[in-house]
Amino acid sequence: MRIECIAIGTELLTTRRLDTNSVWLGERLARLGLGFYRKTAVGDTREDLAELFREALGRSELILATGGLGPTFDDFTKELFAEILGAELVEDAPSRADMVAFYAARNRIPPQVNFKQALIPVGAEPLRNPVGTAPGVWWEDPPGYPGVRIVLLPGVPREMKRMWEEQVEPRLRPLAGNARHTLRMVVAGVPESSLDERTREVRERHGHLDWTILASLTQVELLVRSDDTALLETVLADMKPVLGADLANIGDGNLEDAVLDQLQARGQTLAVAESMTGGLLSARLTAIPGASRSFLGGATVYSPAAKAALLGLPAAFLAEHGTVSEATTIALAEAARTVLGATWGLAVTGNAGPGAEGDAPVGTVFLAVAGPEGRVSIGRLIPGDRSDVQLRSAAAALDFLRRQIDRS
Amino acid sequence: MRIECIAIGTELLTTRRLDTNSVWLGERLARLGLGFYRKTAVGDTREDLAELFREALGRSELILATGGLGPTFDDFTKELFAEILGAELVEDAPSRADMVAFYAARNRIPPQVNFKQALIPVGAEPLRNPVGTAPGVWWEDPPGYPGVRIVLLPGVPREMKRMWEEQVEPRLRPLAGNARHTLRMVVAGVPESSLDERTREVRERHGHLDWTILASLTQVELLVRSDDTALLETVLADMKPVLGADLANIGDGNLEDAVLDQLQARGQTLAVAESMTGGLLSARLTAIPGASRSFLGGATVYSPAAKAALLGLPAAFLAEHGTVSEATTIALAEAARTVLGATWGLAVTGNAGPGAEGDAPVGTVFLAVAGPEGRVSIGRLIPGDRSDVQLRSAAAALDFLRRQIDRS
Repeated sequence: MRIECIAIGTELLTTRRLDTNSVWLGERLARLGLGFYRKTAVGDTREDLAELFREALGRSELILATGGLGPTFDDFTKELFAEILGAELVEDAPSRADMVAFYAARNRIPPQVNFKQALIPVGAEPLRNPVGTAPGVWWEDPPGYPGVRIVLLPGVPREMKRMWEEQVEPRLRPLAGNARHTLRMVVAGVPESSLDERTREVRERHGHLDWTILASLTQVELLVRSDDTALLETVLADMKPVLGADLANIGDGNLEDAVLDQLQARGQTLAVAESMTGGLLSARLTAIPGASRSFLGGATVYSPAAKAALLGLPAAFLAEHGTVSEATTIALAEAARTVLGATWGLAVTGNAGPGAEGDAPVGTVFLAVAGPEGRVSIGRLIPGDRSDVQLRSAAAALDFLRRQIDRS
Repeated sequence: MRIECIAIGTELLTTRRLDTNSVWLGERLARLGLGFYRKTAVGDTREDLAELFREALGRSELILATGGLGPTFDDFTKELFAEILGAELVEDAPSRADMVAFYAARNRIPPQVNFKQALIPVGAEPLRNPVGTAPGVWWEDPPGYPGVRIVLLPGVPREMKRMWEEQVEPRLRPLAGNARHTLRMVVAGVPESSLDERTREVRERHGHLDWTILASLTQVELLVRSDDTALLETVLADMKPVLGADLANIGDGNLEDAVLDQLQARGQTLAVAESMTGGLLSARLTAIPGASRSFLGGATVYSPAAKAALLGLPAAFLAEHGTVSEATTIALAEAARTVLGATWGLAVTGNAGPGAEGDAPVGTVFLAVAGPEGRVSIGRLIPGDRSDVQLRSAAAALDFLRRQIDRS
């Protein structure tokens, strides 16, 4: 099935506003074994939108559009589709009632301009909006385009997601064909090319399945889809010995989820000391809801003074070993663990650039873990610019910790 | 000029991979007074790409494509454009030499498959890649499409950005019309709609200039372009009294650059204590090269234990005032300042969700600054999901500090 996504809003073309809606929709489709063949972002300009809608009607079987369902003058997604398809817009009484109730719950009356949101093209079904005022649209076989489905969703992520989960996904499930289940394996500490090679034999053994390898800066994902969950279990069993300790997570989570899950399962806690990653490692963990159950916190020891003041590293020790060194990193991990009373202490020092720091070239990173059974450490050289080195070092630190916990 | 962006890569359609390249390019175009009228993401499938390239050639004057310039079997952006346009590919000797040198610097010889990257369509110019192996392409007036420009850039952000800055932007500047200088004003702590209203009079007074307001999650940018730098000085002089203390930065920098600049100009230092932002505030500062000159570090006090252990907050104090409160936040700011011996201490506590924490609803945030002349604090309610609340709180904290330093 040819599926395309249209994200509507001038702000998507000109600013730091990332189009996260289409990424979310792409993931949800992938779980159904479906996928976009194309995604377009376009501004709130009538002609540009009309041009794109006409193109999409001519080439796609399912059109998912987000945005442009609001009450203002630059919201006209429904109106334009109706115009192009020669369908009238009529008021949908339940949608109007929903809107009045939505405002009433807030002790308000809907502004007159809002009522246009309750208009639905003849032949289409409204999708109710339980968390906002703009209903969506499910339009099957629109005039002149038999076999085509148009789905119009609000641009507000919370409204879009809720509508998708409750009303769109159930309607799409019967169309999803056979590959309805996805096995997702997250692999850390291995470059994409070597993972490709290492997993080839197992992938070829299950070559009739749909395989994808997705590499990002900090991890590689291996996805395989099938209708047969037992078969996916077999694939996982075959893949486990091949991936060994490099298999960081299975399912929806990433590296940081894996670490938090490990800690929670063992009733253990973590404290960190980061210099060169400057807070990024902590931020990655605390982005996960519920992180506070295992993550106690840490010290961002960006200066020698901070290493002494927060974690008690003596100035003489730092003078002897330097701020970027394996010995200092081990001492920081041990100090974080002790000071915060955590099961595990994790520390990172290094030089993210742009210039060399002492005799540590850009990309130098030291990682250390202090745990119930002692300390382990490693030194690495990580390629990339400042931001890459910081991101990769934070991921490498999480992965290093994950492996130590696994072994303990 | 009709400009469209094509981002190539199956991973952009199916995963959490956000297409940050096109966002970055959109911003850079905006600074030139140009903008995308459409952005498309498409997979590495020959037919889908060919279809899109043909469409783009028929409708756009400038086509910016990223990705598909690598050495593997699923990289064929150049090959497809050449095929569609009936142009031969020939090896570009300097590009081949660059590649050999790139590998030689790493004590390696390029794999044979890599040499296809040095092929350039006849009639196009290669764009050199100083930080990778895939050269880009600048193709003006391709066969059959006079007046069209095709620009092919690598998908790796670092390579794409460097190539854009050094080779593409200089070529585009003459096309950007007369408005070659941009005055960029970064405004913090003000919603877009109110900024729009507040600045209207000044914008109308200089109504013949090209104005843009760009809102992101954490700041609003006001851009104005002109060929006449003296006129831009006048605009700035007119705007300053209107924006007052809300004007956070002028030029390329953002809020965090402004804070680091303030500190450096005064020879002052900063220490932070963050709970609910979990490292994000520190990470935003340490993302800037040279942050270590003024940023000493801080404590990520994600647990009550950390507040006590790292910053010496007595358990009795926390029990009395709670972990999310104005009193605790003030105490944390003061402790960060004292423990690290910094000029300024900045603290954030709050609840980013998903659930309520004690009697603090989701979105509650307290900010406190301790400085040479005392302490100030504020409580706010910030809308959005967990990630939004964390990002906005980190920005609000930086902005709160900026205003206190300004007044001191």
